[in-house]
Amino acid sequence: MKIIYPGSFDPITLGHLDIIERVSKKFDEVYIAILNNNQKKSLFTVEERIEIIKDACKSFKNIKVVAFSGLLVDFAKSIDCKLIVRGLREVSDYEKEVQMALMNRELYNDMETLFLVSNAKYSFVSSSIIKEIISFGGNVENFVPELAYKMLKSKYLHK
Amino acid sequence: MKIIYPGSFDPITLGHLDIIERVSKKFDEVYIAILNNNQKKSLFTVEERIEIIKDACKSFKNIKVVAFSGLLVDFAKSIDCKLIVRGLREVSDYEKEVQMALMNRELYNDMETLFLVSNAKYSFVSSSIIKEIISFGGNVENFVPELAYKMLKSKYLHK
Amino acid sequence: MKIIYPGSFDPITLGHLDIIERVSKKFDEVYIAILNNNQKKSLFTVEERIEIIKDACKSFKNIKVVAFSGLLVDFAKSIDCKLIVRGLREVSDYEKEVQMALMNRELYNDMETLFLVSNAKYSFVSSSIIKEIISFGGNVENFVPELAYKMLKSKYLHK
Amino acid sequence: MKIIYPGSFDPITLGHLDIIERVSKKFDEVYIAILNNNQKKSLFTVEERIEIIKDACKSFKNIKVVAFSGLLVDFAKSIDCKLIVRGLREVSDYEKEVQMALMNRELYNDMETLFLVSNAKYSFVSSSIIKEIISFGGNVENFVPELAYKMLKSKYLHK
Amino acid sequence: MKIIYPGSFDPITLGHLDIIERVSKKFDEVYIAILNNNQKKSLFTVEERIEIIKDACKSFKNIKVVAFSGLLVDFAKSIDCKLIVRGLREVSDYEKEVQMALMNRELYNDMETLFLVSNAKYSFVSSSIIKEIISFGGNVENFVPELAYKMLKSKYLHK
Amino acid sequence: MKIIYPGSFDPITLGHLDIIERVSKKFDEVYIAILNNNQKKSLFTVEERIEIIKDACKSFKNIKVVAFSGLLVDFAKSIDCKLIVRGLREVSDYEKEVQMALMNRELYNDMETLFLVSNAKYSFVSSSIIKEIISFGGNVENFVPELAYKMLKSKYLHK
Repeated sequence: MKIIYPGSFDPITLGHLDIIERVSKKFDEVYIAILNNNQKKSLFTVEERIEIIKDACKSFKNIKVVAFSGLLVDFAKSIDCKLIVRGLREVSDYEKEVQMALMNRELYNDMETLFLVSNAKYSFVSSSIIKEIISFGGNVENFVPELAYKMLKSKYLHK
Repeated sequence: MKIIYPGSFDPITLGHLDIIERVSKKFDEVYIAILNNNQKKSLFTVEERIEIIKDACKSFKNIKVVAFSGLLVDFAKSIDCKLIVRGLREVSDYEKEVQMALMNRELYNDMETLFLVSNAKYSFVSSSIIKEIISFGGNVENFVPELAYKMLKSKYLHK
Repeated sequence: MKIIYPGSFDPITLGHLDIIERVSKKFDEVYIAILNNNQKKSLFTVEERIEIIKDACKSFKNIKVVAFSGLLVDFAKSIDCKLIVRGLREVSDYEKEVQMALMNRELYNDMETLFLVSNAKYSFVSSSIIKEIISFGGNVENFVPELAYKMLKSKYLHK
Repeated sequence: MKIIYPGSFDPITLGHLDIIERVSKKFDEVYIAILNNNQKKSLFTVEERIEIIKDACKSFKNIKVVAFSGLLVDFAKSIDCKLIVRGLREVSDYEKEVQMALMNRELYNDMETLFLVSNAKYSFVSSSIIKEIISFGGNVENFVPELAYKMLKSKYLHK
Repeated sequence: MKIIYPGSFDPITLGHLDIIERVSKKFDEVYIAILNNNQKKSLFTVEERIEIIKDACKSFKNIKVVAFSGLLVDFAKSIDCKLIVRGLREVSDYEKEVQMALMNRELYNDMETLFLVSNAKYSFVSSSIIKEIISFGGNVENFVPELAYKMLKSKYLHK
Repeated sequence: MKIIYPGSFDPITLGHLDIIERVSKKFDEVYIAILNNNQKKSLFTVEERIEIIKDACKSFKNIKVVAFSGLLVDFAKSIDCKLIVRGLREVSDYEKEVQMALMNRELYNDMETLFLVSNAKYSFVSSSIIKEIISFGGNVENFVPELAYKMLKSKYLHK
């Protein structure tokens, strides 16, 4: 069985990687699907995000890294996969995620979203808090994979 | 007794209409009060929103559709009505709504906000998620009244 | 229009009375409906609870104090009233209340539950915390009406 | 891949059945694992609960109904399955479930709990509310499978 | 400045100890105040709980372990201390704790409750889940201090 | 012991002042630390915010008003203080605050965040709701200190 792990991954964090590692042990094939949203400004280009994820996931054998634009359900249809996985950090997460999961089922019949509880160790790590910390000169080395850390530093040096 | 149902209604959804239908059975007169907020960009003009709501509510006899700008309590005073109704979808809704309800009581003594639980069927439907879906080419026919659907399609065709 | 305010009221608190006062200003007739639940041990008998509430509400003209057993919807049918009001203190309240409101609509078509936000001043007051405090010898004079306070003291003196 | 759906199922509801149906489409084998908890009084015996579930699930081909006592992780080890599914109704659910999921991972390495959002239609249905309603003479026909309904009625007739 | 850390500690967990260690670094004197509640059945006697805590805290120099019955505010008055600390694990915790904190301020003017976020590592650990796990034969060695673990095992061996 | 109370204070509210008053009674020195965030547009300049706070706090003797930019942990290091206090209004607050508290401990070892429950009376007051109300012509006199009120009025008169 294959499963999609969608997100912005701008950039991917160790919390995301923990989910990926756990899902890769249970499912045959995991699609890491990067939302290419033109309406929202991102720090990294889609190409950079793909590069970072591929580097961080090179030890896993059943991972595919892809980008998509438009609706997640349309991407899911295109690869004939009706299973999504999402990590959950906190309650407020949960509510928005539930709304999206119910909507996705409505838009694509039998589409299921499976939720996985984030590792407590990473419960306070998110892409946005990481970008905030580094923009103020803080050290985010312990929260992102190596290549993301390097690229984050070089982005903010040039600012 | 009359009651105000305030909102942006940009556009009105079937979830809003469910609240309107239920409230119209219990109260003598329901004012659907569209907030005309110049500080926030809307998809539909106030005139378009009025047109959509009037069309969707034409079978109800005790509905008035009005627009207001400024504070809700000032509008409420102007029509001498101290009762507001709000639908609740989720917990996070609830907190912001509670803050507004307490503040409105402070600003206009005896002003009460009554909360109604949204129909579970529409618990994942909101104006903003609908605009997001249609902007990505998804089908929102099941979530909004007919005229809203037509106008949403024409808005996004011209984009 | 009449409305039911159901509860255990074991005993009624100043938080409950605040809801009653606010509702009595907006609706023609308010039924304070005391649940007589044989499956749950109460501190006060139904008769005592009626006495306390009647004393505390004597200045309101449109209040009826009644007891019921069984399902709330059956009591509501018996007085031909399809409107319930509930006060909300906190988020966890809200979830259980929403579940009951949705279930009651299912059990008795068109039955609506209106939620009112409790006065912030009483947000930490509940019948159970009051009983806990007085059982440990604390002073609850500021949280319950006068007669409830007298009867609480005499109950715990005889223990 | 096989997966465990654990619970008390006292009795099984249409909300549970909705989860089972959805899971049975995605996984090879679903173990409905009834917790036989001697420390908690149940309405139905384990044998009755098995009978009700088997009857309700007879059209699904990949369902196994089993009972277990003790820790869920020990049952999971005994059938060599490291995947659990749980349905989520509300936020408060979520917190307790997250605590259990994190604890189960700690007790049995690589054990994952997948969460599925309950169908909005059944968001207010739980075994305990059903027992409460029928104990007060209410009609629960729309919330449980046929055999559960028959047995619930006969239990409460003899009370 | 001195501060009270109240609780049932039946038994103390590594989550509690993490709070104690952190508080002992910031305040001059920490009173670990064990609630001796006759109305609630406990697994360990107050004496056993004191013994376990003293053993677990022997490396901290500014800890006092005491038991109290009745209201926390009365105990606080008796040692002339107006500061309480509580650890928070989850949202549902938070609401009940807030209710108690507001009530305690009302009962004892200037009494403040400071909340500390539990270490993510122990976010799923509570005295009650530990007792549940060991009662089903699970291993709780990683969640409680050494003496608590020994005494838990001997309690459940004799059952 | 000294403690930092960080925030945007754009402008300070009576809710903030209630926290400051309570903290000033328990700790030796309170640093009110205004975040000077160039990335976020503020209504008041840092200088104006300092002026308002100093005026509102003139009766407290152990208050220092300072501005900082960059990470809070870096400011904390610069004054050698490992204690932060934050007020909590609602659940959604709590989650974001917990995330920040855990992150700050990660970034600066032994840095603790103490949470204080906001006075129920101010539970619905926030800087942003105050700015919203006054921008619509509402009266915010009861929610902010005197100088903030004067300056708010003059800001919005010139708009």
